[in-house]
Formats: sequence, C-alpha cells, structure tokens
Amino acid sequence: MIKVGIIGATGYAGGELVRILSGHKNVKIVWYGSRSYIDQKYADVYRNLFQIVDAVCMDDNMEELASLVDVIFTATPQGFCASLMKEEILQRTKIIDLSADFRIKDVNVYEKWYGIEHKSPQFIEEAVYGLCEVNREQIQGARLVANPGCYTTCSILTAYPLAKEGLIDLNTLIIDAKSGTSGAGRGAKVANLFCEVNENMKAYGVATHRHTPEIEEQLGYASGKDVVLSFTPHLVPMNRGILATEYAKLTRDVTWEEIRAVYDQYYQKERFIRVLDQGVFPETKWVEGSNYLDVGFQIDSRTGRIIMMGAIDNLVKGAAGQAVQNMNLMFGQKESEGLELVPMFP
Amino acid sequence: MIKVGIIGATGYAGGELVRILSGHKNVKIVWYGSRSYIDQKYADVYRNLFQIVDAVCMDDNMEELASLVDVIFTATPQGFCASLMKEEILQRTKIIDLSADFRIKDVNVYEKWYGIEHKSPQFIEEAVYGLCEVNREQIQGARLVANPGCYTTCSILTAYPLAKEGLIDLNTLIIDAKSGTSGAGRGAKVANLFCEVNENMKAYGVATHRHTPEIEEQLGYASGKDVVLSFTPHLVPMNRGILATEYAKLTRDVTWEEIRAVYDQYYQKERFIRVLDQGVFPETKWVEGSNYLDVGFQIDSRTGRIIMMGAIDNLVKGAAGQAVQNMNLMFGQKESEGLELVPMFP
Amino acid sequence: MIKVGIIGATGYAGGELVRILSGHKNVKIVWYGSRSYIDQKYADVYRNLFQIVDAVCMDDNMEELASLVDVIFTATPQGFCASLMKEEILQRTKIIDLSADFRIKDVNVYEKWYGIEHKSPQFIEEAVYGLCEVNREQIQGARLVANPGCYTTCSILTAYPLAKEGLIDLNTLIIDAKSGTSGAGRGAKVANLFCEVNENMKAYGVATHRHTPEIEEQLGYASGKDVVLSFTPHLVPMNRGILATEYAKLTRDVTWEEIRAVYDQYYQKERFIRVLDQGVFPETKWVEGSNYLDVGFQIDSRTGRIIMMGAIDNLVKGAAGQAVQNMNLMFGQKESEGLELVPMFP
Amino acid sequence: MIKVGIIGATGYAGGELVRILSGHKNVKIVWYGSRSYIDQKYADVYRNLFQIVDAVCMDDNMEELASLVDVIFTATPQGFCASLMKEEILQRTKIIDLSADFRIKDVNVYEKWYGIEHKSPQFIEEAVYGLCEVNREQIQGARLVANPGCYTTCSILTAYPLAKEGLIDLNTLIIDAKSGTSGAGRGAKVANLFCEVNENMKAYGVATHRHTPEIEEQLGYASGKDVVLSFTPHLVPMNRGILATEYAKLTRDVTWEEIRAVYDQYYQKERFIRVLDQGVFPETKWVEGSNYLDVGFQIDSRTGRIIMMGAIDNLVKGAAGQAVQNMNLMFGQKESEGLELVPMFP
Repeated sequence: MIKVGIIGATGYAGGELVRILSGHKNVKIVWYGSRSYIDQKYADVYRNLFQIVDAVCMDDNMEELASLVDVIFTATPQGFCASLMKEEILQRTKIIDLSADFRIKDVNVYEKWYGIEHKSPQFIEEAVYGLCEVNREQIQGARLVANPGCYTTCSILTAYPLAKEGLIDLNTLIIDAKSGTSGAGRGAKVANLFCEVNENMKAYGVATHRHTPEIEEQLGYASGKDVVLSFTPHLVPMNRGILATEYAKLTRDVTWEEIRAVYDQYYQKERFIRVLDQGVFPETKWVEGSNYLDVGFQIDSRTGRIIMMGAIDNLVKGAAGQAVQNMNLMFGQKESEGLELVPMFP
Repeated sequence: MIKVGIIGATGYAGGELVRILSGHKNVKIVWYGSRSYIDQKYADVYRNLFQIVDAVCMDDNMEELASLVDVIFTATPQGFCASLMKEEILQRTKIIDLSADFRIKDVNVYEKWYGIEHKSPQFIEEAVYGLCEVNREQIQGARLVANPGCYTTCSILTAYPLAKEGLIDLNTLIIDAKSGTSGAGRGAKVANLFCEVNENMKAYGVATHRHTPEIEEQLGYASGKDVVLSFTPHLVPMNRGILATEYAKLTRDVTWEEIRAVYDQYYQKERFIRVLDQGVFPETKWVEGSNYLDVGFQIDSRTGRIIMMGAIDNLVKGAAGQAVQNMNLMFGQKESEGLELVPMFP
Repeated sequence: MIKVGIIGATGYAGGELVRILSGHKNVKIVWYGSRSYIDQKYADVYRNLFQIVDAVCMDDNMEELASLVDVIFTATPQGFCASLMKEEILQRTKIIDLSADFRIKDVNVYEKWYGIEHKSPQFIEEAVYGLCEVNREQIQGARLVANPGCYTTCSILTAYPLAKEGLIDLNTLIIDAKSGTSGAGRGAKVANLFCEVNENMKAYGVATHRHTPEIEEQLGYASGKDVVLSFTPHLVPMNRGILATEYAKLTRDVTWEEIRAVYDQYYQKERFIRVLDQGVFPETKWVEGSNYLDVGFQIDSRTGRIIMMGAIDNLVKGAAGQAVQNMNLMFGQKESEGLELVPMFP
Repeated sequence: MIKVGIIGATGYAGGELVRILSGHKNVKIVWYGSRSYIDQKYADVYRNLFQIVDAVCMDDNMEELASLVDVIFTATPQGFCASLMKEEILQRTKIIDLSADFRIKDVNVYEKWYGIEHKSPQFIEEAVYGLCEVNREQIQGARLVANPGCYTTCSILTAYPLAKEGLIDLNTLIIDAKSGTSGAGRGAKVANLFCEVNENMKAYGVATHRHTPEIEEQLGYASGKDVVLSFTPHLVPMNRGILATEYAKLTRDVTWEEIRAVYDQYYQKERFIRVLDQGVFPETKWVEGSNYLDVGFQIDSRTGRIIMMGAIDNLVKGAAGQAVQNMNLMFGQKESEGLELVPMFP
C-alpha cells in the first residue's frame, strides 16, 4: 500500500483527492491535513464521506509527514509548499504539489505573476511539470512533481499536437476559457455566493491571469519558440467543468482529416484523452466526475483559423485526478488505477 | 460473467444503468435496447460513454433477448413490461423491471392510479418488490423483481423502522418530497426545458401522484394496518436528488436516542443506508452519484410530531443503483459490487 | 416627494428596496445606510444600479436620519432596530422595520426564539404588523410597522381565509416551505457558496425556525385560538422565490368551489394576490420580480386534508415589496405605486 | 394609444414583448398571435401574466392585422415575415421584424447562411437595420425595421466605436460569445431540457452560426471595409444574458483613457449603454431584465490586443427591448418609454 498524506485536505481539490483515492486499490490515506479544521472529523467537513472516511483533520506538518508517508499531496495556497520544501523532505518522501510553486521554470516569471517571493527556488529545476501525456517519462522518476493548473491542463493539451507540429501560429493563439465555480475554491467570499454566481457570467483576470505564463511556457517548449498569447478566464454558473475555446491561424492549408491524424498521433493511445468525431464539440457534462479531456476542432476556411475546443472536469483532470495519475506513474502503478471513473450524465 | 440486456437503455435510468454496470466486475452488457435510437451508436446518444461503450442501439425484442442474457432490465414506460411478460421468458432469464408494472399487489389499485389495463396480472403475485433492505431474502430467489420507484424508495425507507415498530401514527403521515429534474425523464417537453425549470419550484401531481399507493402498500405491510397518507412531489431545479420530508405524530413520548436506536436496529448493518448524527439533516448533494440513502430526524415536542428526512440520488438508489443491488442479490454477487461509488461533492 | 432613508441598504433586501423605490414616482432616497460599505459608491456594491443611483453609503445613524427623512426602512439584523428605537425618533419620522424586532407581540416569545433581549419592548404594543391584506387600516395610521418575514408572509396568506373561516383544523397544519437562497442574505458563509447550494436541497432549522411563532401568532388571531404548528424551511438552488406547501385537515366536507369562494371573498379585490384556477398550482417563477402572491389548492378526499400552496418572490412580497406597499398605505399613496412589476419569465 | 399586434407572441421573445409593453403608457396590445396556441388564453401559456393579460391567442393573419393595428411585431421563425410581406401591408401598418429576414442587405448572403429562399427581396433595401444607437434617424422614418439579433446587438455595439474610429484591425477580430438558454427558444427539444443544459457548457454553430454575416456586414459599414471575423456562440446554464468577449489587435499604441474617450464619444449620451469604469468588466446579472448594454475593456500590452466585453439581456436589448426602443423611435415616443427597467439583482 502506498501511504498518502494530504496537506490542504479540506479544499475542493483536497476533497476530490480523498474521493478518488478512496477508490484506489493500493492507497491508504494516513494524514488529512487541514489547518482550518484541526481535530474535527473529516466527514463532518465533507459529509459525502460519512461512514467512508473515519479520520480527524491534522495540522499541516510537512516534516513529520515526510517520515510517515510515501507521498504528500499539497493542495495549498501559492507559496506554502515552496516555503517548506527541503532536501530532507524529498529524501524521505515524494511530493505532488497542486499549487503553482514549482510549475514555472523561470523564478522571475513566477514572482512577477504571483507577486510573492519564491522561498525554495533551488528545487524548481528538479521539479517535473506533471502533465502526464507530455512528460510521462520524467514523471516516473521524479521526487517532486508540479501538478499543472486546471485552466492550463485544458488549454495546453487542447492545442499541444498542433503546436508541436507547427500547424498553428502561436502568436495568434487566443484562449477563451470558461470554468465552473469550484475552481474558485471553498473560501467564504461574497463574490462566490450562490446568488452572485447563479444566473450570471463574467470574465475575470483579463490579460492578467496567473495561468497565462504557465501555458506560454509549455506551448513554448512544444513549439520550440517563445510564445505570447491571450488567455481570458470566465466564471460559469456550474460546479465543475472547464471549456477552453482556442483560436489560432493555421500555418498552411490543411483538411480536417490531416488535423485529426495529428491529434491521433499524439492522443490515440492515451487513456484519458478522447478526440471527438467531426462535427462533435466537447461539452463539460460529458467529462464530469472523470479524468477525461475531450477535444474537438473546426477549421474555418473563411478566416484561415482553426477553433480547437477542450473540456475537462477542473477538479479531476484539472487537479486531483491528474495528481493521482502522476502518483500512479511515480509509483509504478497502472496509470489509470483509481481513475476509471465513468463521467456522470446528467 | 452475467450477461445483461437493457430495454430502454437511452432514458436517464437506462443511461445510469450503463454507467454503473460499466464498473461492475462480473457483468457484460450485451444488448442496448432503445426503440428511439435503433442502429445508432449508444455513445452518440450518451457521449459521456464515448470510447467506453462501443455498441449500437437495438430494437426492444424481449423474447429474443431472453435467450441471450441472464437478466433483462426494463427501464420502460408503464405497461410495457407487463404487456410482454410470459412464462417462457421467465424460464429463460430473470427480469428486473424498473417500471411500476409489478410493484402493486392489488391490480385494481394499479389500474386505477395508472389508468391502464394490466396485461399480465398472473405474474404480480410472484413478483418480488425489490426494496433490498426490506425484502432481501425473497429477492435472492426471485425470477421477477419490481424495482421500486424513486420517490417510494426514499419515502418508505425513511419511515420504515418507525412504521414497523409502531412509533408513528401512519394516518397522520405527510410526505413532502422534492426531486431533481432527471426524474421527469428525457422526453422533449416544454415543461422540462431548462428555462421552465431553472429558477423555479412547483408542486405537481398534488394528491394524485402514482407513487402514493406504492408507499401506502409498503408501509401498510410494515405496520400491519391499512395506510392512507398524503404525498406531494415537487420539482427542483437540479439534475439529481430526492429529499423527502416526512411528518407524523409520535404514538408515545420518546427521546432522540430511543428513535435512533430503532433506526440503528434496522439500518446499522446496511451498506447503503447512513443514519446521520443528531442535528444533522440530509442533503441531496451528499449522496449524489452514489447508492446511499441518508436519513435524519428531529423530534418536535411542541407538536408531538417527528420530522423524518431522507435523501437519495433518484437515478441511483432510486432507480439504476437499486436495480443493480437487486441483480447482485439475485445472482449471488457481493451486494455492493459495482455500487461502491463515493458521492461526488461539489 | 417622500424622503426615504434605508438602514442596511447593501443587504439583498436593501438592494431590492432601492430597485423598487427607483421606480416609485413620489419617492426620493436620501440616505443609503450601510456600515460595511461606508463612503463607497452604492453602485459599486450593486452594479446593476450603475448610472441609476449616484450616491455613497453612509453610516447607520438613526437619530440623524430621523430628522432628515419621512420614513426609515431598517433592513438590519435582529435586535438592531429595537436597540435604537425611541419616542423622539417616532415623533419625527415613520419606521418600517424589515427585521423581526416588532413582529411578535409577546416579548417572551421573541426573546426565547431569537435568543436576544428586546431593548425597547415599550413599542411592541404600538407597532402594527404590516401584513397589508390583513391589517390595512391599522397600517394607514401607524408610526411603526413591523414588516412580516418572507416565509411568514407566504405561509400566513396562503392559509388565512380558511383559518379565519374555521375550515381547517389549525392543530393539524403542517407548513413545508422552500426558499431560494437570497433569503439567506449576503453574508460570506461557506454554506451559501455557489458550490454548496447548487445541485443541492436540504431542510434546515427543523422544528426551531424563528418564523414559526410569527406564523402561529397571526393564524391564532385569524382563528381566535392558540395555534401550534409544524414549519420546516428548505433551501433551494435558485436565487429568488418561496413556495409554501401547507397541509391541514378540513373541518367539514367541502367542495373545491366552496373553498374557492372563501378565497375569493378575501382576495378577489386584492391587487397582489392571485387565486389560481382549478388544477393550477403556483410556481415561484410566475411571481419572480413582482409583488404577487399566487395561491392554489387541492382537496384530498382520501385523507380529508386540503393542500394549500402559495408562492411569492421572497425579496419582493416577502420583504422590500411589502415594505413599499406598507409605505404607500402609511403615506396615502396608491397602494400599488412602484409595485406594478410584471413577473419576469423565464 | 399605439395599437400593437404581435405575431409569435408565445415564444420567449414574444412573451418578453408582452411583459415590456404591459408597462408602456401609450400602448395597447390588441392581437396576441400564436399559431400553436390558437383560442387558448394567453395567460395560460405565460402564467406570469395571469390577471394582467386577459386575451386569447389568435391565428397569425398579417393582412387582417395590418388593418387593425399601428405596428406589428413579428417574433417568428426565419422566412415567415418575408413570405407575407407586401406593399399593401406596409401601407397600412409598420412592421418590426424580430427575425433575420430583413437584416442582411445582400440577399445571396442571407440565402446562403440561412439555407432558405427569400420570398420578398424587394423590401430588403427599404428595411432599416434597427440598431437604435447606430441608425436612430433612419429608424424614425421607417416602415419596416429589421430588429437585430441578440448576439449581433451585443457583438456589434461592444466593438462599434473602435471599429468606426479605426482603432482595431477587424481582420483579427474574434468574438467568443456566451448566451443563456432562452436564446434557444421555447421549442421542445431534448438538447434544451434542463438536465442537458444544467451543469454543462458547450460551443455550438462553430464557424457556421448565422449571426456571423450580420456582424460582419454592420462592422463593415462602420469601418468602411469588408470584414471577415470569427464568431463562436456558447450555451450557458442560465436563463438570460449574453456576454461577448472580443479580441482584436490595436492598430496603434493607445492608453486606456484614449479608448475610453472614444467609447464616451459614441455612448456617453446613450440611455441604454453603460461604459464601465477601469478594471470593471461586465456581468450578465447586472443587466438582467433591463435594456442596458454594459461595456468594458482591457488593453493587453503584452500581445498588442484589446479585449472588449459586452453584456446584455438577450431577451431585452437583444430582442424585445430593442424592438420597443425601435417602436418608440418610429412613433415619436420618448425613446426609453416602457424601458426604464432597473436590472434585477440577485
């Protein structure tokens, strides 16, 4: 059994980790860390887990935890994981960090977009960006995995094969992304109250959202060039789901079938990426509760653009599911173990 | 492997059967019956099952099916299953009927409330009412199981221990039930359009809903007396979930602990019923996607009443999940096989 | 022009007062009181009012306000209005209190259910319970009006004619009420976050909700007897709307038409109460945004009960709309002035 | 009094016309045309209008109607209005057509995108495109007004001043639009059922939506050049509201204040367009139920792009409200008569 500790177990991503790991054959969660709910029963915080989880929330002690468990998931605010990272910890346990701390290789970019000082930049180089379908091999040997952001997972994977193959001009790439409200977290804020979100739609973080440099960096690696793009997130009145609609100029005349062949080349064997048939576009409900990314596209010959669309469940493939997928890779488990969740409809 | 055929596979309950059975170790679905979508790919109707189910919808041929499969689930309109039932079919296969055709023992009551003639009343006696926690033993030996209605499952089980033990006056029982919209089915009706249901709440079928006699009959068996009660269903702007709020006069002075002990007596060992702690009341979200019934109650000493509350996912414990639980009992499977679904939150 | 001051202008009821009074011909709002947003532009708090309201939030100074305005609306937490009430204030201005402070005539009942000491019980006697359709005449001459609660307005008016005429046994009355989430206010609480409320339904305050004694008192006046009843509120995933489903034993055999005639006797001339046709039951969406109460009912001859149903917009007829209706009565305005809002559908 | 007839009075846009015109001082609706509900009470179709509208639905007889009323609103499927248009009708009455029949000046473009033959192309030249803020003067003298589409109203007006002033490169313009579900109409389709739309988000009509050429034509007029752009509509789980997020390259370096000054130049005096403050982006809820368009923008110096955002209520400014605004212009009424609706929040 893989012994697991979770720091930040009572946020939405933490709760989803517990839901998914509860169904994993070879995992035992031994530490439910939550500074806000210390000594409270975990199932009193997430009553869906009543009679499933019988544990009490613990303080967030990463050093102690490192000697108890095989892997720590940190589902914590930006800066937390970096502030505690030490060589001694990584020698004793593996870390899968769901925050942004080790995602961006250029520490200056991190500090500029996040507005905080990075407390352990010496580990950035070592950290592996945990986009499983792209970095599978490095993940397998990693001690420290930076689990990608929800918007970024969806945005990158939707465009990745075309970026890699030079079929789109990345300087024309515009990503218009829409997210369910669980992406905003479980903090008690007026802006996230039911009555403020329901029957409402808005953009936010326009031209300033922190997932932008993460997407640019990864698509830059794919294409071999520096990328500067537009990314606009929107809040949608639903619990789960991200839909990314991505626009780019094609670099040459191509048919639908040619593009499809490129997607297949990268994704046909992927267990968690489904390339949709012609004329079918992704819907967030079709992936809800599962680790799938659904991808579809349309060529617009009038404008010379391609419109690529991707949908994920932000809490699964966009957070906890991908984290478990990373754990499986790191521990030699079947990659889909615990993740064979059928999307729930309706 | 248990070979399964589904008639009515493209309704919401049928779709949920497919979702659940896809995760059942010992089941193979060999027939996706759907008169409306004959020859279409099943995954084109429910795209959440893309790359999971690779089958085409078939016509609804129960006789042919009977020789192909070990069990047939009929998730069909009232009257359909009864119209096709024959001894030859039951000799070759088992039937789990999700419609109301074999739920009510008095055929006159059935014909009055449903307004249709029953075409095979000779099988009513044999049919076992598939409320697993109540009729477990009879289900194990049954050829024909009448899977209970969604409202009825929730309404009956919430009150059952107190009815059985004579702690409530069933003639004062009032059941005010609230259901998500999937209970209304997938038919294209103006009343079920998003814009008609969303931001709206209403009662319907007031004093005339067909689940009333089913609840009365079962609580009558429990109490050993004829029962006449009030049942009012309401439509709620959510996809899944039933909440039943039930009011009855207590027959004597009791404490919370005494009532709790009675619930525990019946439900403590039940895998799919969770009796909540004092002061905690069920919420539909805590059972969403799972086969659980959550039960809570409050004694109101001012009025001498008890308020019992139960919550289920109408498509799981209220339909497909309970049907699979019945199948497991009928085929000697572990009762929870395929049903160890952790509720999804949020 | 009637000069109006609002204390608590930035809660949902306060915001609705502003929306409604913005369309009132003879009103000028001169004070937007909000302790939480002092010195901020009101339209920055409620951006729907951008370019409509050009004012800044002020502190909550009731004494100063009393000399500036003709009427003060207090949309404030329980206890606030009572703590500031003085004869000098009432000599200078009228008060319409949207809190519970002056609704209940027995101060002991108030203090028991609300758990706070009443700071100015000497005004309780004078205060008029502002249920316009019942107490119209007293309201016209009042200095201090206690605006009824949202649940109570709906619950009382739905049963009032039958209670008054002795057609129902009030000791059997059970009120199962369902409310949209704006009733929970604009406070930043985890329980009211979008992801906690959406796709969820629950009861709360079971057997202990504070609106219970208010309903009991008023239906007691109507019937001339002490009333003890069951009231259970539920939270529904929608912004606005209350639906009350009310069950009671009929005291004698009656026809639908007889009951209808009784409703008509009380409500036919009422501008804001619509008694629905036979077989039609109220839906919250049909009154959304308006000051209407829609009432329907069904006789259940099997059980000897009547099921009465009422629907209002909790922020309008259940709060701000009724408050304006009270103001119109107190100031000799046309009762419907500013309230001729057509419900919005969808 | 302006005598009004509505053809297609029972669709969502028709219902909204009735809601708005019910509050218009100088209007009397004398004909509620609805082929689907002939002889039924209008208030039985839209129960929000119970006791407000006391009329019966009539057949759709445009010739008869033309001699009875001063203006006909046609809220009908594409092709209907064109198929009945005659000189005799226009000599007797004015027409405000909410369908697309007379919006596009090039009949070939119309026939190509809509896939139907235009039955009265001789009136296209005369028809005035009823975008009030752009074509106010021509509308005042018009007999036949083509009321703009919902997406188009929002998309055009959001970019119009910058297109007109040459500040954006229209060949780079990408419009990513999100609409509430009332835009899909009241037809009974599985795809628009509550359970299919709720908790879901998708793009549709990608690169093929019929509002595309309408936007291109109007922005072409504004800029004096042919325009080819990308337009992608999305379905959002909410009843009302359109949010358009529009991306374009700036043609030169500009400051926020310069852009703001251009918007002000066109919109400062407009009663129904609100340009938001810096850092504030439109939300559909802030305009719900009203005739406002809220516009905001952000300059992204990293990419040289501007992101423009606009929000309207699709049924008001995007359909019925703008139609009434057109009527007011055509009949010399105050432009805002009947339209001084304060947005409802929450």
